[in-house]
Amino acid sequence: MPISTIYEPIQEGMAEVEASFRAVGDVDLPWMVEPLKYVLESGGKRIRPALTLLAGKPYHYNPKQMVPLATAVELFHTATLVQDDAIDKSAVRRGKPTVNSLWGEAIAVLLGDYLFAKAAELVCSTGNLRVMSIFAQTLMHISSGQLRQYVSAYNWRQDRQEYYQQIESKTAWLFSVAAQSGALMSGALEEEAEALRTYGLNLGMAFQIVDDILDFIGEEEELGKPVASDLLQGTLTLPAILLMEQHPDETIIKEIFEKRGDVAGVARVIEMIRRSSIVEKCYQIAADFCAQACLALKGLPDNACRKSLLDLADYVIERHE
Amino acid sequence: MPISTIYEPIQEGMAEVEASFRAVGDVDLPWMVEPLKYVLESGGKRIRPALTLLAGKPYHYNPKQMVPLATAVELFHTATLVQDDAIDKSAVRRGKPTVNSLWGEAIAVLLGDYLFAKAAELVCSTGNLRVMSIFAQTLMHISSGQLRQYVSAYNWRQDRQEYYQQIESKTAWLFSVAAQSGALMSGALEEEAEALRTYGLNLGMAFQIVDDILDFIGEEEELGKPVASDLLQGTLTLPAILLMEQHPDETIIKEIFEKRGDVAGVARVIEMIRRSSIVEKCYQIAADFCAQACLALKGLPDNACRKSLLDLADYVIERHE
Repeated sequence: MPISTIYEPIQEGMAEVEASFRAVGDVDLPWMVEPLKYVLESGGKRIRPALTLLAGKPYHYNPKQMVPLATAVELFHTATLVQDDAIDKSAVRRGKPTVNSLWGEAIAVLLGDYLFAKAAELVCSTGNLRVMSIFAQTLMHISSGQLRQYVSAYNWRQDRQEYYQQIESKTAWLFSVAAQSGALMSGALEEEAEALRTYGLNLGMAFQIVDDILDFIGEEEELGKPVASDLLQGTLTLPAILLMEQHPDETIIKEIFEKRGDVAGVARVIEMIRRSSIVEKCYQIAADFCAQACLALKGLPDNACRKSLLDLADYVIERHE
Repeated sequence: MPISTIYEPIQEGMAEVEASFRAVGDVDLPWMVEPLKYVLESGGKRIRPALTLLAGKPYHYNPKQMVPLATAVELFHTATLVQDDAIDKSAVRRGKPTVNSLWGEAIAVLLGDYLFAKAAELVCSTGNLRVMSIFAQTLMHISSGQLRQYVSAYNWRQDRQEYYQQIESKTAWLFSVAAQSGALMSGALEEEAEALRTYGLNLGMAFQIVDDILDFIGEEEELGKPVASDLLQGTLTLPAILLMEQHPDETIIKEIFEKRGDVAGVARVIEMIRRSSIVEKCYQIAADFCAQACLALKGLPDNACRKSLLDLADYVIERHE
């Protein structure tokens, strides 16, 4: 199912969010307007703000609160991408040069701060202190998680549990907050908001696992970055971890990490993974997370938004980019 | 007058703020506790949180709100220092190695994000949405100001007006927010909070000007960093701008910026400034800002805190570090 069909119940809201997101670039700050607009116009699937709107729409949906909130969610996500690319010194994202490769790391860091602050300001404008506090904790969680990932780069002794913790803070947490805050902002009951939080958390886990699969099975042109770029940068993801689980005596990952930038070794790992049942197993694990996500929605009333959330779980598995 | 005498009316609160500031390091995040504690225990004069407490104390002072608020102000300041040092690749601050020089720039950026988020969480805990919103805007203002300074590095065509704008966003803005938010949080009238905001803004301008004077007249051991480090890094501050004003045909600054890292040229500028009346003039400008700061307090009731704020204006001029 195309994503536009899934977004149908919130079509109007999504258009407003897109406009409000781009309007962040309408500032009288000539020295930063170029990188700012570049980032705001670089596109994306907008899954996180869609979660916010889909979670809130069935309740007391007020666009004056929901549009700034959903915009803040996407800005927050954008800020983390911009700073992550600077920290990892990544040159390309979604097939386009990163902010740091065009304007340098300093600009990327400061632009990220600005986007975090703008997101905070938008959340403040909703007047909901509970949601504000959830966002502050989210930034603590994400930044400490990224710090953890950074210090454990090129450490090949990481297991599935550590991987789950990492993708939870890197991706799933913001998915969960996007859904939970949309529900809370619209006056959903506490248990409904909690169900949507659980949905978002599991959906985010599945989303990141699929990302990590695509990193191994995709082609460079589709990915918009080199194949197995995580492994090249010293980050272990699920396919590589399953490879180590299946071949406990195989030392290729250890060797790649010890050598750093061992392109031939990485190519061998890609081949090993593609030829094995690992990809299928990873997809199964992602599907299990999606099933958990859908299960969390069981008690919620049946309506178009709930249906879209269920469809989104399928989309997350089936997508190729 | 020693700073401890100035802080006397808020002695108890300052001790609580210090404890609460250090308690930020008591987290179960083993991978980041070392740089976190390093930053939290690196000392400082704590002028910003003192402003918050002195501004709020004469009104309905509630330590359960004021201590988290003042702690947040200092955390916010600390976050900007940690990220600025990473961006400028500075090796030393207050005579100690910077976070980026010990753990790398990535850790410094992420630790800064974490501290911003912790500050936001503490402000949220006060339940005051107005103050929360002021803080979000402050981060927007500071990050866009730092971005501006970064892009105009090594540009010798900057005048006094641009310098004032830069130190306003770099330093004075947070001083103003520290005082204003302390007043607002304690239920001061809008015009009282505004008077304290004006006081903070002008005090912050004076504070930064004195910093920029000391950068030229201090000795490396006192400064805890190289003399004229700003000029070496391509930043024009007031003494250098006055030098260019006095000698419009002199091209030494232009040459230093064109060559970059021209230590001999910088040494010559230091000599020229020390031998001229520029230092005296800069002090006069700082004193004028302090006079503006004190003037703003004219309408406020006479009490120990107001007296401390007036004394602080003298301290800011007289300090040697």
